[in-house]
Amino acid sequence: MTVTGILHPGQMGATIAATCSGTTLWASAGRTAATQRRAEDAGLTDAETVAGLVERADTIVSVCPPARAVAVAQQVADAGFAGVYVDANAVSPTTAAVIAELFEHYVDGGIIGPPAHLDGTTRMYLSGHDAAAVAERWAGSVLDVRVVDGGVGAASALKMCFAGWTKGSTALLLAINAAAQHYEVHEALFDEWAISIPDQAARSDGAARAASPKAWRFEGEMREIAATFVDAGLPAGFHQAAAEIFGRMTGFRAADAPPDLDTVIAALLDADGVGPS
Amino acid sequence: MTVTGILHPGQMGATIAATCSGTTLWASAGRTAATQRRAEDAGLTDAETVAGLVERADTIVSVCPPARAVAVAQQVADAGFAGVYVDANAVSPTTAAVIAELFEHYVDGGIIGPPAHLDGTTRMYLSGHDAAAVAERWAGSVLDVRVVDGGVGAASALKMCFAGWTKGSTALLLAINAAAQHYEVHEALFDEWAISIPDQAARSDGAARAASPKAWRFEGEMREIAATFVDAGLPAGFHQAAAEIFGRMTGFRAADAPPDLDTVIAALLDADGVGPS
Repeated sequence: MTVTGILHPGQMGATIAATCSGTTLWASAGRTAATQRRAEDAGLTDAETVAGLVERADTIVSVCPPARAVAVAQQVADAGFAGVYVDANAVSPTTAAVIAELFEHYVDGGIIGPPAHLDGTTRMYLSGHDAAAVAERWAGSVLDVRVVDGGVGAASALKMCFAGWTKGSTALLLAINAAAQHYEVHEALFDEWAISIPDQAARSDGAARAASPKAWRFEGEMREIAATFVDAGLPAGFHQAAAEIFGRMTGFRAADAPPDLDTVIAALLDADGVGPS
Repeated sequence: MTVTGILHPGQMGATIAATCSGTTLWASAGRTAATQRRAEDAGLTDAETVAGLVERADTIVSVCPPARAVAVAQQVADAGFAGVYVDANAVSPTTAAVIAELFEHYVDGGIIGPPAHLDGTTRMYLSGHDAAAVAERWAGSVLDVRVVDGGVGAASALKMCFAGWTKGSTALLLAINAAAQHYEVHEALFDEWAISIPDQAARSDGAARAASPKAWRFEGEMREIAATFVDAGLPAGFHQAAAEIFGRMTGFRAADAPPDLDTVIAALLDADGVGPS
């Protein structure tokens, strides 16, 4: 019987835990009521603290905002965890290597797709020595877990490249809309797009609505991708700029409903860069 | 009878001249044999020098690489041109304003699409006081000339926003491919794209082939877009990075055939950033 611990059951993490076979644990200390509710809905067992999780789990999977990944790993290492640590976060290969240093048994990971509620939507890539053994825990579930060749860093690199395009191009598209608004040619741009890039106006509005609630954690992810590029001898600017764009949208985290394109543009052009909240 | 001068009949400029009504002039001094051939094919009259053009034309249209736009304008202004000067180049609104200062009658312009050989492919946007009068010269031609509201700078801003997306996203896509290659996850990325972003692999190869022959002039255009963003209070990084990517591809200008994706990736990852030529 396998015992897998999850840090933490956020919207994504809860589905990673819910789709995992065997016993699945979480640690309630210091978590929000929303996390508590998700953990209960997913049928997770409460180990109460990270120390409790470390004592009972043979494998711990970290699913958290990228800016928290090293701190979460350090907490687990400090509690003396001797099992397999899986960092499934959107971090650079270099950050993954830093985390790997903390554990004797380490598996690198990266998740692509939305929270795994439906078959075929979401893949978790794993790389490193114990990747295949860890992957078996999700056999037959709606989460598609795949081993990627190349050892520690490969799964993170794949995630960085994938998100570097999807989120990087989203930030660029929103910034272009803001520039057009600043120069009072937004309507002319939409007219031109209607001729030459059909759906680009709708794509802009969709990007505003989809990215806004999550922009607060995209900022850290973009900084990890910028570092990934630098380590490859490629320019960091695309994702440094994307981090700044998403940083100006953090105020939408608490919005009741996703904002429309005009509202996002206003936040991007706001000199204080604070957003509307 | 209108007399329009064109500086210079490159691949784009030759079609701008060929579609213009009335007498169209060019200046052969110092131009290449290829430009000579294009000017003859387009039926242009040779005024020999910029001074000759300035003496005979009532309107002069500049179509040149963005990095040359100010120098070309200065040459015309120094020759005492008193007619309407049209800068149709991919420059920032601020650069357009600098050029506008050189002339009493100035029209801002921006071209979107390929050289205008066929109906419906190419638009030239014009803005400023004399824009509508200038636009009439192309009435009924395959070049679709449109007036954009907002005065000097509006047509340039529209071009910057349009190209900021098309060329900026092309550079990002090529850079992502290079990063994946560096981390040895390029095949894994293509496998993931086959599931989640159909056509993205083909789009990558198409971007490599289409951008490579023109990358040498995209570099300067990206720097103009970066300046356009800064003047709008938006981050310059996207297009500074794009300039660096295209800068590493300048060696393909002289290639016999457009390179494939692997060849472009190799140039991007080349530490010297020189490319293959």
